[in-house]
Amino acid sequence: MTTTPIPAVTGAVFIATSLDGYIARTDGDIDWLLSRSQDIGETGYDAFIETTGAIVMGRNTYEIGTTFDEWPYTGLRVMVLSTQLDTDVDDRVTVHRTIDELLVAAAAEDIHHVYADGGRLITSFLQRGLITELTITTIPVILGSGLPLFGVIDHDVSLELLRSTTLGQGITQSVYRVTD
Amino acid sequence: MTTTPIPAVTGAVFIATSLDGYIARTDGDIDWLLSRSQDIGETGYDAFIETTGAIVMGRNTYEIGTTFDEWPYTGLRVMVLSTQLDTDVDDRVTVHRTIDELLVAAAAEDIHHVYADGGRLITSFLQRGLITELTITTIPVILGSGLPLFGVIDHDVSLELLRSTTLGQGITQSVYRVTD
Repeated sequence: MTTTPIPAVTGAVFIATSLDGYIARTDGDIDWLLSRSQDIGETGYDAFIETTGAIVMGRNTYEIGTTFDEWPYTGLRVMVLSTQLDTDVDDRVTVHRTIDELLVAAAAEDIHHVYADGGRLITSFLQRGLITELTITTIPVILGSGLPLFGVIDHDVSLELLRSTTLGQGITQSVYRVTD
Repeated sequence: MTTTPIPAVTGAVFIATSLDGYIARTDGDIDWLLSRSQDIGETGYDAFIETTGAIVMGRNTYEIGTTFDEWPYTGLRVMVLSTQLDTDVDDRVTVHRTIDELLVAAAAEDIHHVYADGGRLITSFLQRGLITELTITTIPVILGSGLPLFGVIDHDVSLELLRSTTLGQGITQSVYRVTD
């Protein structure tokens, strides 16, 4: 038996969080975010998207996406990491059972840098050392509970601050490069 | 029986956190913070301290303070919230069994605004609606686990960003006013 080497695919993060580190309420609600995201100026999202070949997310983030009136990922290649979803659940996405399988599928499409989205997936990618850059947009609210951006990782991830800016509505945005 | 009204004492927060929201490792270690805090410029700490009449902390933060070669709170009135510590454990502090008791003691000393320190105490103060301002200094590292700055609160705390600055070493600092 031979082992297939895992191809070189890296990920970047572009995500909004409450000051206490939640990306959604426990039930997935992000109204607190949407209500504070009007007229905030240039977020850099479009330029960020241009640098990535696909958006990768877990089941939870995928399912939140399906609740919007409009599919939020139109025009993007969407890869979902899930052990539970049917692989043919949705023509707009592909479903992958493991990170390794997902990375192989990405590389097979000549995708070598992805947009890592959702707290659990971002944490898994950080744990695996796959994240190269994080853009963290902080919304001026403490939610008190919710779905956390960061989970448990068994090592430090040292960062270099590339830039930090203030958007409208009291929102701050910091871009970090992973240095180790 | 009469109920003693709780006096009007408010708190402010001035604390450093990792990007993933930890104020210390699980064992209280803050070497990751100290090693990144040299030559970072003006933090505003001294000006902040001037606005407060005492520093209030829980037992965990107090005990971390006792491990330093030099007592970090020299010259400050230190009030410790703890149900476990002996009330005469340390001449440098007073020990209070409940937040209400602590607030009464502060007001009796004509202290009406305190420096709220430590994750659990800050969370309790936020839960009680006692915090008026937060200065959050973010260190460019993801620790992966540790003692969290924010715990569970049963309501949103809306914030207004007063200012956000970049210090040295890739450290950012944002000052928020609580608006509700």
